[in-house]
Amino acid sequence: MKFSPLFWPIQLKGNAIYILDETKLPQKLVYIKAKNYLQACKAIKDMKTRAVGQVLLVFYTFLLEIKKNRSRKNILPHLEKIARAINATRPTLSFKTLTDMVLNRAKSGAPLEKSLIGMLEMLKQKRILQAEEASRLFNDGDAVLTHCNVSGLLPLIAEFCRREGKKISFFATETRPYLQGSRLTAWELKRAKVPVTIIADNMVAEIMKEGAVNKVIVGADHLARNGDIANKIGTYQIALLAKHFNIPFYCLCPPASEARSGIEIKIEIRPDKELLEFGGRRIAPAGVKGYYPAFDVTPNNLITQHIHLRV
Amino acid sequence: MKFSPLFWPIQLKGNAIYILDETKLPQKLVYIKAKNYLQACKAIKDMKTRAVGQVLLVFYTFLLEIKKNRSRKNILPHLEKIARAINATRPTLSFKTLTDMVLNRAKSGAPLEKSLIGMLEMLKQKRILQAEEASRLFNDGDAVLTHCNVSGLLPLIAEFCRREGKKISFFATETRPYLQGSRLTAWELKRAKVPVTIIADNMVAEIMKEGAVNKVIVGADHLARNGDIANKIGTYQIALLAKHFNIPFYCLCPPASEARSGIEIKIEIRPDKELLEFGGRRIAPAGVKGYYPAFDVTPNNLITQHIHLRV
Repeated sequence: MKFSPLFWPIQLKGNAIYILDETKLPQKLVYIKAKNYLQACKAIKDMKTRAVGQVLLVFYTFLLEIKKNRSRKNILPHLEKIARAINATRPTLSFKTLTDMVLNRAKSGAPLEKSLIGMLEMLKQKRILQAEEASRLFNDGDAVLTHCNVSGLLPLIAEFCRREGKKISFFATETRPYLQGSRLTAWELKRAKVPVTIIADNMVAEIMKEGAVNKVIVGADHLARNGDIANKIGTYQIALLAKHFNIPFYCLCPPASEARSGIEIKIEIRPDKELLEFGGRRIAPAGVKGYYPAFDVTPNNLITQHIHLRV
Repeated sequence: MKFSPLFWPIQLKGNAIYILDETKLPQKLVYIKAKNYLQACKAIKDMKTRAVGQVLLVFYTFLLEIKKNRSRKNILPHLEKIARAINATRPTLSFKTLTDMVLNRAKSGAPLEKSLIGMLEMLKQKRILQAEEASRLFNDGDAVLTHCNVSGLLPLIAEFCRREGKKISFFATETRPYLQGSRLTAWELKRAKVPVTIIADNMVAEIMKEGAVNKVIVGADHLARNGDIANKIGTYQIALLAKHFNIPFYCLCPPASEARSGIEIKIEIRPDKELLEFGGRRIAPAGVKGYYPAFDVTPNNLITQHIHLRV
């Protein structure tokens, strides 16, 4: 099985973590080197990596710091400091769920390094199974709309479909302002030889009305206990439009957090210059402000089916 | 009354037409010189001007050519050639309605030049009245979402509101891919000291859910006889979302064409490179295609009120 570089965008080699720099795609496939947890946190804040990349980076950061501090008698205070720094990077993905997981294992006295490596290997297997499960939702000839980027799962879903003799194609919203759809999703699908067409975020209703798409699939940065999700801004309106046009709306989910519903998910507001500038050049008039909530909440009643990471 | 340069973006001086180059805004306020109908048609095809600018350019092009050809015995064949060239520029705005109007006047033997000048003056007055009529729909404190650009009418509406002691503010979608919202609408509102906030096209449902906007107003490139409109791509999904959130959706309309309903309006498909490139630099991966319908149709049942140009 061939994986998209976005499926597993973080590697630990020697005393450094290598982070796929998603801001450089599709022009360049390059990795940033992080030698400690502070550099890893900065990569998260600067959105060099996102989605599953962030999850992996949490675990690899702990692994790196454990490796570097093997001589320490009691590593727990250091791990707690790292957890606090990670939890403070960005609000919408539940970093605390991840760092608590590591701290609890550390407190339980389990062989931490081995346990984390095992967990990562299991995560990889679970994600492959998640793609396989999702592939059963599609039929030959389906045209599937997606938004933002689901970290390598879509090429994998298409591959599982292909093995069953089903050809599927995608429409990807460009996903302003960061363009994850055109820069990442279209890139990884093209690379995997899966047909993909880019549209602007304002063309969703039009292609649904035209009958150009018959299914929607997205990922999620946060799953609440009641099935509400937070995902890249724009997901909510796609879900509303899919409901209107009676098009199934599927969501590839991470494990649920402690949040009981979407109301409890904190939505990150990013600096408006990320919306008002393009490649360092201002596109909006001087002095005009923008509003950039980076995520929105899609309530569970708009989601036809959640595809969970099986525990 | 102070007008936005976008309210009347075309001027005729001497033997040339001056066309506000909307592609250069907001960085530069510059005009392109067109010395004949071929150069005028090119400016339309290249989207140097749009919406009302196109309408004005049609009439000024005829005026220019009449002026240059005063010595001709029978100018009608020349005018018919010009009409054919204009009708072939872009499909969605009904250029034929405009050129037929001119040709019919020419055939009737009316003093054409004077008649066209009178018509343009009347159009200006009607547009001012249209803004005044629209201003009555708003209350003090209204936050109004708009899409694309309505050629100077929004600053005028805000000015009429101000005279009645009503302060209104706007949210403008950036309107990908051409960014008329951030480049033109936000620019002319800022210039007129009307508060405006830019959002990406995928943030509409979110700000509606938050209650940040309580009304929507857009323009239209084409009005069918049954009240369906064609306007910049993205208008349709905003109308659907406004319906869902029970937010009034207003449309500033041009005169109706011959089309009986939206089905009869031809939607222009633009080259996908306008979506896949930004400032001449490709943003999408090589070899990936895009889909760029430049307009969509909003059915009359989603429009709370049409604000017509009064005849």
